[in-house]
Amino acid sequence: MTAVPVLPADFPALRGAVLTDPDVTAAYADDHCSPVHGGTPLAVVLAECTDDVSATARWCYANDVVMIPRGGGSGLAGGASALDGCVVISLARMNAIREISVADQYAVAEAGVINADLDAAAREHGLMYPPDPSSYEICTIGGNVATNAGGLRCVKYGVTREYVLGLQVVLADGRVIKTGRRTVKGVTGYDLTQLLCGSEGTLGIVTTVTVKLKPAPAHPPTTVAASFPDVVRAAAAVAAVVASGVTPALMELMDRRTLEVVQDMRPFGLEDSTIAMLIGQASTPADAAVLEREFERAGAHYVVVSDDPAEADELLAVRRAAFPAYENAGNIFSEDVGVPRSKLPEMFARIEAIAAKYGLDIPTCAHAGDGNLHPTLIYPHGETEVPQAIWGAADEIFTAALDLGGTLTGEHGVGVLKARWTGQELGDDVLELHRAIKAAWDPKNLLNPGRGF
Amino acid sequence: MTAVPVLPADFPALRGAVLTDPDVTAAYADDHCSPVHGGTPLAVVLAECTDDVSATARWCYANDVVMIPRGGGSGLAGGASALDGCVVISLARMNAIREISVADQYAVAEAGVINADLDAAAREHGLMYPPDPSSYEICTIGGNVATNAGGLRCVKYGVTREYVLGLQVVLADGRVIKTGRRTVKGVTGYDLTQLLCGSEGTLGIVTTVTVKLKPAPAHPPTTVAASFPDVVRAAAAVAAVVASGVTPALMELMDRRTLEVVQDMRPFGLEDSTIAMLIGQASTPADAAVLEREFERAGAHYVVVSDDPAEADELLAVRRAAFPAYENAGNIFSEDVGVPRSKLPEMFARIEAIAAKYGLDIPTCAHAGDGNLHPTLIYPHGETEVPQAIWGAADEIFTAALDLGGTLTGEHGVGVLKARWTGQELGDDVLELHRAIKAAWDPKNLLNPGRGF
Ligand SMILES: Cc1cc2nc3c(=O)[nH]c(=O)nc-3n(C[C@H](O)[C@H](O)[C@H](O)COP(=O)(O)OP(=O)(O)OC[C@H]3O[C@@H](n4cnc5c(N)ncnc54)[C@H](O)[C@@H]3O)c2cc1C
Ligand SMILES: Cc1cc2nc3c(=O)[nH]c(=O)nc-3n(C[C@H](O)[C@H](O)[C@H](O)COP(=O)(O)OP(=O)(O)OC[C@H]3O[C@@H](n4cnc5c(N)ncnc54)[C@H](O)[C@@H]3O)c2cc1C
Repeated sequence: MTAVPVLPADFPALRGAVLTDPDVTAAYADDHCSPVHGGTPLAVVLAECTDDVSATARWCYANDVVMIPRGGGSGLAGGASALDGCVVISLARMNAIREISVADQYAVAEAGVINADLDAAAREHGLMYPPDPSSYEICTIGGNVATNAGGLRCVKYGVTREYVLGLQVVLADGRVIKTGRRTVKGVTGYDLTQLLCGSEGTLGIVTTVTVKLKPAPAHPPTTVAASFPDVVRAAAAVAAVVASGVTPALMELMDRRTLEVVQDMRPFGLEDSTIAMLIGQASTPADAAVLEREFERAGAHYVVVSDDPAEADELLAVRRAAFPAYENAGNIFSEDVGVPRSKLPEMFARIEAIAAKYGLDIPTCAHAGDGNLHPTLIYPHGETEVPQAIWGAADEIFTAALDLGGTLTGEHGVGVLKARWTGQELGDDVLELHRAIKAAWDPKNLLNPGRGF
Repeated sequence: MTAVPVLPADFPALRGAVLTDPDVTAAYADDHCSPVHGGTPLAVVLAECTDDVSATARWCYANDVVMIPRGGGSGLAGGASALDGCVVISLARMNAIREISVADQYAVAEAGVINADLDAAAREHGLMYPPDPSSYEICTIGGNVATNAGGLRCVKYGVTREYVLGLQVVLADGRVIKTGRRTVKGVTGYDLTQLLCGSEGTLGIVTTVTVKLKPAPAHPPTTVAASFPDVVRAAAAVAAVVASGVTPALMELMDRRTLEVVQDMRPFGLEDSTIAMLIGQASTPADAAVLEREFERAGAHYVVVSDDPAEADELLAVRRAAFPAYENAGNIFSEDVGVPRSKLPEMFARIEAIAAKYGLDIPTCAHAGDGNLHPTLIYPHGETEVPQAIWGAADEIFTAALDLGGTLTGEHGVGVLKARWTGQELGDDVLELHRAIKAAWDPKNLLNPGRGF
């Protein structure tokens, strides 16, 4: 048992709770990134309003205490993991949807609103909130903004940043600012809203988010699923769909090893011959026919086309189970590289070669329509250190993605996990600009220090 | 005749031209913002490559000389107007399209490429570049990025920032950086690409732009044009279409005075009864039927529906002529306010009241589907000073837009013209963050000083 840290007498009184017992705060020490182990916070603040966040930040700033903003803790890069002696500021209790404007198609939500709840609330008005990370039932809209989260529907609808109109943000010193607006367009001043999107809690703590909503489609999409004899052919099918000019509503790829770990967790009748599976959705029957044609041309074993929403949900449930199944199989080092879509077949081939070289298996699923792959390195539960072979393979995968004109992270963010590689992608001058921006916003380096770049 | 400034002996040798004769450089002193009068530059550099821009910036930085980046000079806020003794850096000669990737649907263009040329090049491959400011035949892609330009198609496709994937940028001190990437998604580090979008040449000089392209639609849209007995009813029709959940491909509104100045410049058969005109386009016949229904319900005199591209072009030509016709009618003080779309009728009513109060007529056209209005204050050609009534009316229009939850500028930018009002929209803390970011990027305040916020 660790001693319970004593909260300084001048710690502000808050509407929300302040936790200090290490047995309790341990639940807020880590996110879903197995390789990163969080430290022991001085306190965890369960904020209930912007004033709570502001008062906490003011105190931390005055006392040089590090702050770690936290939403659902579903992050895969260690960005919300605690540091010894920090204050974790959880937004989870700030979960009110303040406004849904049907006339102007926007919503105002507190940062702790769960992604799926926001979408469900919009649907009641015939609208939708499109960005849907696979973690949609556990991640928050504030966390989505901080990471600029992607998701399954993003190939058609775009990622989180394309929906964020305005933010309320608590600065490192506790001041509260508003950025952006409720109008569709606006260019007054620098776009601080966009700068904050994807800044991983290093520039400010988001307390309220104004997002665009879209009309929900009148008809359910047509789902086109296909089984392939190898992953490179499935990837070629994706590239062919993109080149055809049709924009699918969704296009997800799973390799054999991914299908196997899902099958282990929740059997769905995986066939021996299915070495890769591609699930596409199209908004119109004509587009669905293009998907079907391109899947067949690229060498699919068989293609299923369905208009039935229940069947579509079942197929997508397999994809949505991929990450939980990886986590079920072991500790995960989750990669998130992106490449131009025409390079998908080559990227898959390189991942296979790297897996063979290191004697690992590297199950990979992909938001294939976006060129965003999740090669996932798995090591046994209980092992606290990441095995050396995994660091080696991870490094080679990152390098391969950059080599193909790609990126280190398509949507999960840099967090702690990938900080060592950012210089390779960004270069020294750009890193220097990052440090200058960070210093301008957070001169004492107290907000999520050392993360994000 | 003014004396020709003597270029210092150490001014760098460039591939492009360097102009110093004031009779020649005068052509680069102003943009399309009549109220702002540019000063006399020390020199105008017609850069031909990134090295030219970099060498010029390095020299300016070493010698504390102000730099004014310039694209097509079509700006309406004075952002590209010269200052006495500055170096204007024109990107107009950097007009090569370096790459169009059909497989990955992106283009790489030098900053000086004309917007319409980029779109035309994309069309040759079945693709399109959607953002289309009315000035598309004279503005550059670099200027579009610097102002985050909107346009007619943006109601469906989104504005410039939604298309920019990556940039090559020359910093104030001449260093060359790259931001962003070619992949659809990517979240490594802060999104400097987005920060630069709309930064109006105050943070860096854009030399190359990588943009997303979209598949060009297979079928031409259906055009639905309507004549209304008053502008408030036309604005109500727009709000009704938005609330219906249909996303039009375009929705533009013109008031009587706008139609009259266009008629004066290029007669198109304007009827006496047409007090406002709404031009919508829809991607499908079903959507077109919704536009038609909502226009009629809101009180249109008559509605024309047409599938004929030639007829559509003719109707749109009226809208595209609005700004040239304003400029034909006098010197223009162009406003660019944005409001939530449900507030359009009220905003039009307020503009009418302000016009009456000041005894002005204020022709107004609007990218109505985006809630973005251009109330345009016109004063006689030849008058060099903006009349006091116009400043007064402009001030009241800005205040009305903010009051309705809107913004000072939807797409034209702040430039010089609107700098006095930015504090009212942004607030002191946010302005302080602007100054801190500016100081981090341009510590000597040499890039477009005093502009943008
Ligand atoms: C099963 C599973 C599937 C996933 N699928 C996807 C996917 O499809 N697409 C995708 O993009 N991601 C996915 N993720 C990753 C993760 O869900 C996203 O990164 C998500 O956006 C994190 O939200 P969160 O609320 O859980 O944030 P947290 O994990 O709590 O925090 C993430 C980062 O944001 C910061 N942060 C959180 N809230 C705030 C705030 N209010 N203000 C400022 N900073 C804040 C934190 O400091 C941290 O740096 C998945 C994760 C899991 C476990
Ligand atoms: C008839 C007419 C119609 C218009 N219609 C629209 C419309 O529908 N939508 C709309 O948004 N605007 C419209 N505008 C305004 C204008 O065309 C846009 O702002 C356009 O984006 C400016 O591009 P430009 O190349 O002419 O830039 P400039 O006018 O040359 O410069 C504009 C600003 O960008 C900076 N800049 C230019 N190039 C660069 C560069 N390479 N790097 C860094 N900074 C740079 C300048 O310093 C200045 O601050 C219209 C203007 C006219 C005259």
